[in-house]
Formats: sequence, structure tokens, C-alpha cells
Amino acid sequence: MALIVQKYGGTSVGSVERIQAVAKKVAATRDNGHKVVVVVSAMSGETNRLIALANDISEFPNPREMDVLLSTGEQVTIALLSIALHKLGCPACSYTGGQVRILTDNVHGKARILDIDDHSVNGDLAAGKVVVVAGFQGVDEHGNITTLGRGGSDTTAVAMAAALKANECQIFTDVDGVYTTDPRVEPRARKLDKITFEEMLEMASLGSKVLQIRSVEFAGKYNVPLRVLSSFEEGEGTLITFEEENMEDAKISGIAFSRDEAKLTIRGVPDQPGVAFSILGPVAGANIEVDMIVQNIGKDETTDFTFTVHRNDYHKALELLKESAEVLGAREVFGTKNIVKLSLVGVGMRSHAGIASTMFEALAKEGINIQVISTSEIKISVVVDEKYLELGVRALHDAFGLAGELNS
Amino acid sequence: MALIVQKYGGTSVGSVERIQAVAKKVAATRDNGHKVVVVVSAMSGETNRLIALANDISEFPNPREMDVLLSTGEQVTIALLSIALHKLGCPACSYTGGQVRILTDNVHGKARILDIDDHSVNGDLAAGKVVVVAGFQGVDEHGNITTLGRGGSDTTAVAMAAALKANECQIFTDVDGVYTTDPRVEPRARKLDKITFEEMLEMASLGSKVLQIRSVEFAGKYNVPLRVLSSFEEGEGTLITFEEENMEDAKISGIAFSRDEAKLTIRGVPDQPGVAFSILGPVAGANIEVDMIVQNIGKDETTDFTFTVHRNDYHKALELLKESAEVLGAREVFGTKNIVKLSLVGVGMRSHAGIASTMFEALAKEGINIQVISTSEIKISVVVDEKYLELGVRALHDAFGLAGELNS
Repeated sequence: MALIVQKYGGTSVGSVERIQAVAKKVAATRDNGHKVVVVVSAMSGETNRLIALANDISEFPNPREMDVLLSTGEQVTIALLSIALHKLGCPACSYTGGQVRILTDNVHGKARILDIDDHSVNGDLAAGKVVVVAGFQGVDEHGNITTLGRGGSDTTAVAMAAALKANECQIFTDVDGVYTTDPRVEPRARKLDKITFEEMLEMASLGSKVLQIRSVEFAGKYNVPLRVLSSFEEGEGTLITFEEENMEDAKISGIAFSRDEAKLTIRGVPDQPGVAFSILGPVAGANIEVDMIVQNIGKDETTDFTFTVHRNDYHKALELLKESAEVLGAREVFGTKNIVKLSLVGVGMRSHAGIASTMFEALAKEGINIQVISTSEIKISVVVDEKYLELGVRALHDAFGLAGELNS
Repeated sequence: MALIVQKYGGTSVGSVERIQAVAKKVAATRDNGHKVVVVVSAMSGETNRLIALANDISEFPNPREMDVLLSTGEQVTIALLSIALHKLGCPACSYTGGQVRILTDNVHGKARILDIDDHSVNGDLAAGKVVVVAGFQGVDEHGNITTLGRGGSDTTAVAMAAALKANECQIFTDVDGVYTTDPRVEPRARKLDKITFEEMLEMASLGSKVLQIRSVEFAGKYNVPLRVLSSFEEGEGTLITFEEENMEDAKISGIAFSRDEAKLTIRGVPDQPGVAFSILGPVAGANIEVDMIVQNIGKDETTDFTFTVHRNDYHKALELLKESAEVLGAREVFGTKNIVKLSLVGVGMRSHAGIASTMFEALAKEGINIQVISTSEIKISVVVDEKYLELGVRALHDAFGLAGELNS
């Protein structure tokens, strides 16, 4: 008998019929002898409906009251799912965030979980009941309702799993797992049976939006095995877990990419301490997030400096960079939005030489020029012209033998 | 400076615009130097929407989960009203039943309030905030969400007023006060400035459905002056309070009536101890509520026995009565649904002789035959043929000088 936390998102509980389908899945898991805690989101559309009501009254609604308002969305779902479980003869008990006592800080709208009281939930589990918990919400130390921000139900599920020392946290979503790359770009993309937390973090931050990145961090930190699977299809999904011996075989888990970046370069700045800060300080000061940062070794006592930002921030960043260039007496400033970032991700690359050269070779064979390179322990990213996105992804997918059967 | 509890029902908060109008009323009360606690219902239609969702899943939804579901209705309203108050620059803080801690028993769907923790609410009032409380809901001692049953927001308001020792509990509704009788029957019906709790109870139980009878009992028990007034029109409404010296002048406060009754008679039963129980026992056993009960003094060692029940229970009651008649060897059983009950209500009748004779004279003048008479300390009820309803109400209204100006 295992203790399993299952999380169903808004689309999975988007109608009475879907809630009934979820109830069947949950009851089946319990019938298989497991203890089950279910975390649910608001029915799809409900949160937007509530936000619209508030915005009809005020452009900037009071944050505390917004949390009171929005938390009703999940409360409706926990009640309806519990009613559906009872209807199936499956004993169930619903909990709001405050009833569990999911204690958070008091940052309304994006609160962080501080502690979870497992007492009542464990009591109901021991009594053979399915426990249905409202995702996305908690209470602060004074009993004020807080929300974790949109998508926070994943975080609730992982936190519940951690607090209860669950054997597995299953995130049901509208995809059936994590793929080697986006199947819309490479139809032969293969579903991964397993992936490590670190790889998943790199995949998520690079654009594979299957899971909230925060919940993956959380799961890794608290040693909660995480499984992504489909609400609508049968299947084992993808298990996100710790590095194991046999994972060494797979050097590369997947190819991630991002179309959202723009590249800026400042050329001929003095090669001396403090110059990186002079360049990036004003950018950070304008709340622009910088992704890749590359500085080549200099010559003639000057150096070149390249970084990437979100495309939406490109023009603002370019302006700031021109100002810095004047102060620093730089030779030139230029940039482009017509780039994409391709990334190889895999824990295997730690212990395998030659990954990078295989990557560069594969791109060169297709005539793809690499503009910037950046590496981390389990990731190699390159910036290329955006026209090479599909070609590059497929070339790398092939080069590292990731392809499965052609998806129908 | 007074402490005022205001309650707004579902129609009064039925749209964003109406919630904004309520916010203005509340803010104005605070601007006049009062401390204000507002109790609100769910937006009209919302409770029915939620019930429909649950019934789509189960014909008999789990009662605990129904309370979790339905309590979201008021929670949405408290958040929206608080947002509207903030928008007007009026500091406000919302409370669910559980957050106030309105402690109830655990009878889901019709819980009774056991205790109210006034600590947090008093703190916010002292800080100059308007406190917005979700009506109709509480928590049991284990923190399970309970509801007081439909219309229970009135009870919440009165209970809050009692706990906080408020100077007045104002119930805002879609009528502008309590009238001497139903203005649809007697256009010259007059709004009462004051009425006693006892009179209000008799009026309410006889069909003047302005207030939940339970909240009136509650207000009387805890000495909370209650005021009924309109959400949509200006005016002082009707104050429901304790008997005062000058109330003696008004012998009669109003004429109530009920169209919902049916009358049954059993004739020629043995005039001996236990016979009333033999007749009414089976009726009560079938969960049929009996309203008026009249037994005339007998002759020839037999007596006649008449009682009234709700029209919906008439056929069942008649069957039971026929069975009793056989057992008791009664001479005859008969009844009719074509009756109405007219009632004079007024604390003044305690100390004034002649009220009954004035009543009977007024009805006789119009040729209205009285079928049954029943009296209590502050009420005289008669049963007449239903065709005399309007004629009888107007005759009594005139006879006791209740008429005001003709309502436009």
C-alpha cells in the first residue's frame, strides 16, 4: 500500500462530467489499495470569471480580498469532487487550504508555503477516506486566506506529498508526459519514462511548460518523486526522480528551445574589473531579466560582451546598453530579435566527454552558424538564427539518438 | 457613535452594480460616525447555480460537502463588497464564518449558532475598519464548514449583533418595512414605524414573510433591536423592539392572513379524557403540523373537534381522521380546503376588552360567517371561507383604524 498524492488541474475538472471522470480515477487508485490525497484547481474559466467580477469594481482590487475571492474557485471543486466520490461509494473528505492548515507567509497573491499540519489529513487517511485538498491556497498565521499565485496547485500537491511523506506525487495534466523535445517541432519526439529533477528544471525553464518550475524545485528539495501523466488517456507518464545508476546510459534527455529571446552585444569595452557590472547593473535595475551572459577573453585591452533577454525587453535593454556604451567608451552596440536558443539537457553529460563536439558537429553539418554558446553542468545552450529552429532541433534529436517511433 | 450591524440579502447584492450601491450605503453609515458590521448573502442566483452543479452529480449530495460548496457563495460576496469599500476609500476587512469563528453545532445544512468569537472583529472595528461577514455559515468545533440553511443570513446578522452588543441590527430587504397588512390585498395598508418582537413573530408565522422567524426569535431573546428597511429606497423602515408605554395606544398592529390552511372536523366523539390525543396522535405521527385546534364543550356525552393543517397535508390528514373516527365510533368526519385564516395581532389587546367583539362585528357586517375561532394573548384568529379573504382583511383593517394614505 502506497500513499499517493494526485493533482488535477483546471482543464481536468472543467465540467461536472470531467469531475466525475476524475472521481473514477481516484476511486480506482483507492480500490488498488492505496491511500489517496487529491489536490485540485478551480474549474477552468472560474478563476477568470472571479477576476472579471473584481475588475468590474476596481482596477486594483485589494490583494487580501482577491485571495478571499479566488480561493472560492478551488473550494467549489473540492466539494463537487467529494460529492462525486461519495456517489461512487468512495468515502471522501474535502479540505480548504485553511482547514488542512497550509500555513503560508502573508504575501497575498503569491504566498509561499511555510508549514503543513498533517494531523487531520492523516486521521482521515487512516480512516480509509480519500482526502480532497484545495490547491493554490493557504492561510497566514492570523488565519487570513492567501493564494500561491496561478498554477500554485502543483506546488500544493508537492508540498502535501512532502509533508505526508507520500510515495509519489502524480500531476495529471493535458499531456501524457515529458518528451525529448516538442512533438510539434519533431514528430518523432519520444516520451521519457524517467527524467531527473535537474533535467526537468532545465527543460522547464527552457520552455517545456508541463510543470510549474517552482513545484519541480520543491519536489527535488523534499525528495518527492513526481510523475506527470494525462487526465484523459491511460499511461504511466513520466517519472521525475533522482539520478539512478542506469540513467548514465542516457547521455541526453532532451532538446529544449526558446523562441522568446533576443541577443545584445557590446563590443570593445575596457577589459577590467567592474565592467560586467557597469553593463548589467542598469539592465537589472530596470527589472529586465538576463538569461545567457557570455564574455570572450579580450584583446588589445578591450573585450566583447553578449547577453540575451526576453524579446519584450529588447528595445528597453538596447537603449540602456547604448547609454552604458557612451559611459564606457565602447566601440559598438548591436543586437537582434531574430534568434532562438537550443539546449541539450542531460545529467549524462557530466561524465561523458564529447557531447559538445557532437552537438556542434550536428549543427555544422546542417550549415547552422552558432552565435553564442553557454554551458552548465547538465546543459549546453546555443543561440542560432531563428530560421534554424526546426532544423536544429531535429538535427540534435537525431544526433543523440532520441527519436522514437513516428507519432501518429 | 453607535455600533450597527447591517444585513443585505441576495437581491441587494445581486450584481456588481448593486454591490457598489451597498458599499456606498455602508460607507455613508461609517462616515456618520458609526462602527459598522455588514453581513451579506450570496449574490442572487449563485446558491441555485451551485445546487444545480451538485445535483448534476448526485441526487443526494453529501451534506458536509454541500456546505463546503454553498458557503463559497457568501465568500464571493464578502470579497467583492470589501473590494468595493476599499475602492471608495473605506477600510474594510472580510470574514468567512470560520474566520470570525461563528461556532455552530454539526447539523450540516441547518446548523445552529452556539457561540461567536468577537475578538478579531472587535479589533478591526476599533481600528476603524468596516467588518464584512459572510452570512449563513459557520464552523463546527472540528473546523468543518456548516450552513444555517437558506435565509440564515438574517440569523447571522442578529447573532453578530447580539455577540457585539450592537445598538441596532438593520435588515435591508426588498420591502421598505412591515405593514399593517399585505398592501396587495389592502392598498391602504400602512407601514409601521414600530412593532414588538411578539407581534412580529405572530405576523411572520401568519404569512408576512419579511423576516426569517428564527432571526426574530433570536433578536428578541438577545435584546437586539431589529430594523427592517429597503436596500433600494431611502426611509427609516420598521423598528422591531420591546414593548413601550406609548405602544399601548395601538391596540392592533396588523392583520395577518394565511391561504395555506385546510380545516378538518370530527363530530360526535366521546367527551372523555384522551380523546384529543387519540385524534391528533396519528396526525402528529405522520409529521403533519397542526395549527389551530378547537374543541367545543360537548353535549350528550359527545363532542366535536376541529383543527387546521397545511393544505398540502389535507388529504393525508383526512384519511388518518377517518381511521380514528372508526376506532372512536365518531358520528361524522368532514373538511375543506376552501378556507383562509385571518388574524388580528397586537400587544394592545392584552389590556383592552372588546377587541374580539369589534372584530366579530366587523365581519358580521360584511356577512362573513366565522367557522372557527382561536385566540392567544396578542392574537385572535378566525377561519372563514376563502372567498372572503380580501373583504375580511379590508373590513378588519378599517374597523381598527389601521389605514394610512392610499399607496400610489
